Amino acid sequence: MNFKSDNEAPAHPAILEAIGEANRGMATAYADDAWSQRLDEAFSTLFETECTVLPLATGTAANSVALASIVPAWGAVMCHRRAHIANDEGGAPEFYTHGAKLMLLDGVDGKLELGALAHAIDSACVHGVHNVRPAAVSITQATECGTSYRPAEIAALAEVAHERGLGLHMDGARFANAVAWLDCSPAETTWKAGVDVLSFGATKNGALTAEAIVVFGHPEWLEAMQRMRKRGGHLLSKMRYVSAQLLAMLDQCLWLELAARANAMAAKLADAIEDHPQAALAWAVEANEVFLQAHPEHLAALKAAGFEFHIWPGHDDLARLVCSFATRDEDVDRLIKAIDQWR
Amino acid sequence: MNFKSDNEAPAHPAILEAIGEANRGMATAYADDAWSQRLDEAFSTLFETECTVLPLATGTAANSVALASIVPAWGAVMCHRRAHIANDEGGAPEFYTHGAKLMLLDGVDGKLELGALAHAIDSACVHGVHNVRPAAVSITQATECGTSYRPAEIAALAEVAHERGLGLHMDGARFANAVAWLDCSPAETTWKAGVDVLSFGATKNGALTAEAIVVFGHPEWLEAMQRMRKRGGHLLSKMRYVSAQLLAMLDQCLWLELAARANAMAAKLADAIEDHPQAALAWAVEANEVFLQAHPEHLAALKAAGFEFHIWPGHDDLARLVCSFATRDEDVDRLIKAIDQWR
Amino acid sequence: MNFKSDNEAPAHPAILEAIGEANRGMATAYADDAWSQRLDEAFSTLFETECTVLPLATGTAANSVALASIVPAWGAVMCHRRAHIANDEGGAPEFYTHGAKLMLLDGVDGKLELGALAHAIDSACVHGVHNVRPAAVSITQATECGTSYRPAEIAALAEVAHERGLGLHMDGARFANAVAWLDCSPAETTWKAGVDVLSFGATKNGALTAEAIVVFGHPEWLEAMQRMRKRGGHLLSKMRYVSAQLLAMLDQCLWLELAARANAMAAKLADAIEDHPQAALAWAVEANEVFLQAHPEHLAALKAAGFEFHIWPGHDDLARLVCSFATRDEDVDRLIKAIDQWR
Amino acid sequence: MNFKSDNEAPAHPAILEAIGEANRGMATAYADDAWSQRLDEAFSTLFETECTVLPLATGTAANSVALASIVPAWGAVMCHRRAHIANDEGGAPEFYTHGAKLMLLDGVDGKLELGALAHAIDSACVHGVHNVRPAAVSITQATECGTSYRPAEIAALAEVAHERGLGLHMDGARFANAVAWLDCSPAETTWKAGVDVLSFGATKNGALTAEAIVVFGHPEWLEAMQRMRKRGGHLLSKMRYVSAQLLAMLDQCLWLELAARANAMAAKLADAIEDHPQAALAWAVEANEVFLQAHPEHLAALKAAGFEFHIWPGHDDLARLVCSFATRDEDVDRLIKAIDQWR
Repeated sequence: MNFKSDNEAPAHPAILEAIGEANRGMATAYADDAWSQRLDEAFSTLFETECTVLPLATGTAANSVALASIVPAWGAVMCHRRAHIANDEGGAPEFYTHGAKLMLLDGVDGKLELGALAHAIDSACVHGVHNVRPAAVSITQATECGTSYRPAEIAALAEVAHERGLGLHMDGARFANAVAWLDCSPAETTWKAGVDVLSFGATKNGALTAEAIVVFGHPEWLEAMQRMRKRGGHLLSKMRYVSAQLLAMLDQCLWLELAARANAMAAKLADAIEDHPQAALAWAVEANEVFLQAHPEHLAALKAAGFEFHIWPGHDDLARLVCSFATRDEDVDRLIKAIDQWR
Repeated sequence: MNFKSDNEAPAHPAILEAIGEANRGMATAYADDAWSQRLDEAFSTLFETECTVLPLATGTAANSVALASIVPAWGAVMCHRRAHIANDEGGAPEFYTHGAKLMLLDGVDGKLELGALAHAIDSACVHGVHNVRPAAVSITQATECGTSYRPAEIAALAEVAHERGLGLHMDGARFANAVAWLDCSPAETTWKAGVDVLSFGATKNGALTAEAIVVFGHPEWLEAMQRMRKRGGHLLSKMRYVSAQLLAMLDQCLWLELAARANAMAAKLADAIEDHPQAALAWAVEANEVFLQAHPEHLAALKAAGFEFHIWPGHDDLARLVCSFATRDEDVDRLIKAIDQWR
Repeated sequence: MNFKSDNEAPAHPAILEAIGEANRGMATAYADDAWSQRLDEAFSTLFETECTVLPLATGTAANSVALASIVPAWGAVMCHRRAHIANDEGGAPEFYTHGAKLMLLDGVDGKLELGALAHAIDSACVHGVHNVRPAAVSITQATECGTSYRPAEIAALAEVAHERGLGLHMDGARFANAVAWLDCSPAETTWKAGVDVLSFGATKNGALTAEAIVVFGHPEWLEAMQRMRKRGGHLLSKMRYVSAQLLAMLDQCLWLELAARANAMAAKLADAIEDHPQAALAWAVEANEVFLQAHPEHLAALKAAGFEFHIWPGHDDLARLVCSFATRDEDVDRLIKAIDQWR
Repeated sequence: MNFKSDNEAPAHPAILEAIGEANRGMATAYADDAWSQRLDEAFSTLFETECTVLPLATGTAANSVALASIVPAWGAVMCHRRAHIANDEGGAPEFYTHGAKLMLLDGVDGKLELGALAHAIDSACVHGVHNVRPAAVSITQATECGTSYRPAEIAALAEVAHERGLGLHMDGARFANAVAWLDCSPAETTWKAGVDVLSFGATKNGALTAEAIVVFGHPEWLEAMQRMRKRGGHLLSKMRYVSAQLLAMLDQCLWLELAARANAMAAKLADAIEDHPQAALAWAVEANEVFLQAHPEHLAALKAAGFEFHIWPGHDDLARLVCSFATRDEDVDRLIKAIDQWR
């Protein structure tokens, strides 16, 4: 009964099927194949605007290549203290940007706060070349706390960023879960709200390994992105198999169906925790992650009972429970039952 | 009738099957899964020595991560002027090494020459810190000219390298083809001959996307390799699917079977060219690539007839014809027939 | 009446004299001259232990080259949130380390706190390659708050660092001021307390432009340091003029004499502020910097009266007043008088 | 009797005098001082056009910062195989550009050849992102062979570069010697011929340590240059002393006077070699360097007699004899006499 990560789920059968279909005959290498060439159109339709899509294999690469196309080596990325790019990517953003700084900001619910962001940008560059220059804001959707930014929240952050000449990047490792939960259009929570570039995640959402950088406008960033993707070793020779996964995800809204399924499992779990006298939700459940606060002994008991999950580093009373498209109803039921026994 | 690249071939059915089998249930992310954890043992058996294996998705990443673990930013890699790392990877080795130099050496048949290598290393560092320090030699097996180093040739180069404190890296994008052609053991052409680290290619040989860094000894390089793989965005969350491909390749020597098949197609083609009055082999065919010299008009006619291949940059009388496991007998026959018409 | 920075002071006459004396005849370039070659011995005598000295022209370069020799690109430097390396060097440490992270820690009086440091190191690397690995601690002596670490404080931090495999770097831009104020031996506040490498500053203390990396032990770091100094463009061809300045500084303890003079000016200023009803010292004055807290209107009035100094960014009631060897008694007296008028 | 390098000469007395004059009172740090602020105007007058000047301490830094402002990490610099940036700077250009490639071209007399340059650029980027993109051409004036490009030669190279979207950088470590020998205006051999940015060397020409990046137009490069100078640790806090040297050099054409003096010494030496039966000039002497070809035993005898010079690496019959402003007539006479004894 694995609630450790949506990364531990298998791929959805439709994804393997799409790979199988792509596996016919020869195809031009290095993303010049028919599948990869359909991505721009498919994503432009999804996002209701012309966009450019670079497929690649990992979210870390997507985030880093995207940021490195916006942020010079002597620049800075403003992000939340809990951001995946800051804590969990082994320094990849610094590697791809050649040493730009990540400036870490506090903010409740895993979200950047408007005033704090504006203040941080403005105070970061008062000493000219002695400082580094903030060049991008990166937000995570859904956040590391399992919450989702509302379109209006994003638009407000975008305004702060754009007024000051910074680009807005969205790490969308769980973009599908956020869109499914918000029940809005993908456009509303991205370019319509001011997002310049999105790391569109599919792997956590049931792909084998497939991510995409989706650029809204900004043709001036594309050469650097293309070059860096290659330079980082992320221009797969047989890219058709990544692109085929992405197309399959978009086909008949599979991506939203899978995300909704994961969200539903998380919501069910959240319901059981919400009114529990011995348990609490650390943050509102607005995607597929549940952050359960409980006595360490209770959490230990869950582990002993065979439930797999991560304890939040440094917080032995906080468990992260992640649902995926593959999470089974009966596993959630069993977990709820186990939690109910604390009453 | 595609002779453009083995990268354009599909994946072998056994590979898709292995992916399908790996797609059952949850598995720990980031190469801590059961498939990835069997790699060390499987490759150690294959190579008849204990080795450490890092799976990843592209050959460019394998080469770059391997080299960057050996070569400091102020170091240099000695390689052949035609090497893939020097010409075709968009500067990836420089990126991963943070700016080490590739020193390009001449050499017939796409191979490094002993004397030239020794001289280049020795003369490269006469001025101490004003120079950069050669730290690795990189050779390609099979070479960019479609030839294969004999074990004794490798051993001699290794001696030159090791005596001077350099490590020996082998870019084995077509390692399988070389081993199949040489009809030697994988060990003989690698660690027994002094190779320290191998980029073991599977993608060109029928995988979907699967490469591996194979390290012979050298525990002192491993942390940097592990860190750089992550930092470069190459530690796939669902690594099990890459590892499953590698295991499938090794299973019952599929990798050699596929390579032998590709080699056989190339050999057949070479036979038809060898005694042709209007055609010639630029280099001996010792793997799965055929370099056909012919009148530019003849080559143009082949293209017009539907044969796809690359003209060597800057040499309009030189065609590169690559065979893969998927190259069909009838396509080779047709090509031979077309060439025979020049007589 | 300039209290802006000790960087704005001229060079001491003895320094120009030493340069003049070094300006005789030919001398081997690139630090192979007689002056540069005497540095190891001169500093070894000063520090009562064998040390290796690399002269260079700026403190930013000294800090960055030193850190980059200890910290891999996938590593981290633990430092105080106010550290010069973090805020005022335009990202130089990230540049030289190829993208290592600076992890910023809080701590009163501009000093790292033992528990916070230990906790930060320990929690920074719980996720293996997904994190970056702390590899060095950097402290500033005297601190950015004008305080000085006691030898015992350094020793305690060193223990925390060394136990965890980290090196200890000291940014000694105002090392002279700290040593003069502590009235201890240079050895006591460096290697005897566990410092591995020191950026020894002379420029702020009356040199024209002269800094030195002083390495205590650690021969394993020297090649990288030498290479990076060159690679960064900091191996001056006519290094003799930098080395001559350093030797002049050490000669008859000029460096301590100049620092003591600057400290005395600061102490005099501090005395006048200490019991002032409208003014306060933000931090104890333990070197040559005075941090004056006062009403913004009072500070503005000082500026209007011709006193030059920096307002602390974001704190309009906090003025940094820096004294140097060149600060004149009468300027300090005038400033004290001006402050006294607030009573 | 030192003919090893102009780097081994002392500073000219006028330089020390200028430093002494700059050493009065306080001055704003980090190039905001009165001396540094006069540089733009002084160089604009010298070059008869508006230019932007960044002073710094070493030629390696000047070259690297200049190139890194033009060339992206995934770009390439085209330069002569003998170029100082390629052989003698410890990989500094790769460091500052974050791993751009230097593409090494052959060419007689140490000069780039028009056709070879055009061909190299055109063939370097036929494979898009798989290659790196040439972004700058760098030429050395005077060359590493002691020859000087004529303005028309530069103009032709500039046309090749500009037509293809590359910038033209001139490494002018011995720019003064070239201008003095060509007897042309500084403008004619730089921006009028198409040079975009010049590393203006003064150190080899009698300064203590003073170099300048001179940018002709290209305001779009300036932020990166300013940032990289700081980031590399080359924004000296007491920059006034570097700027004062540069101003002193320009004052009353001291720079040309010193260069002419060095050139005259070299010319005298060349005259004595030209018709010598046992000696030859490897290249025309068009600046302050003489490349003497002679029997190794003769060269060894010169060394034994106390003449100091470098043997060209790998060529024991080729001596590099460098004259500086400080080379004494009697030393040249003695050397000529020694050479004459071979007759």
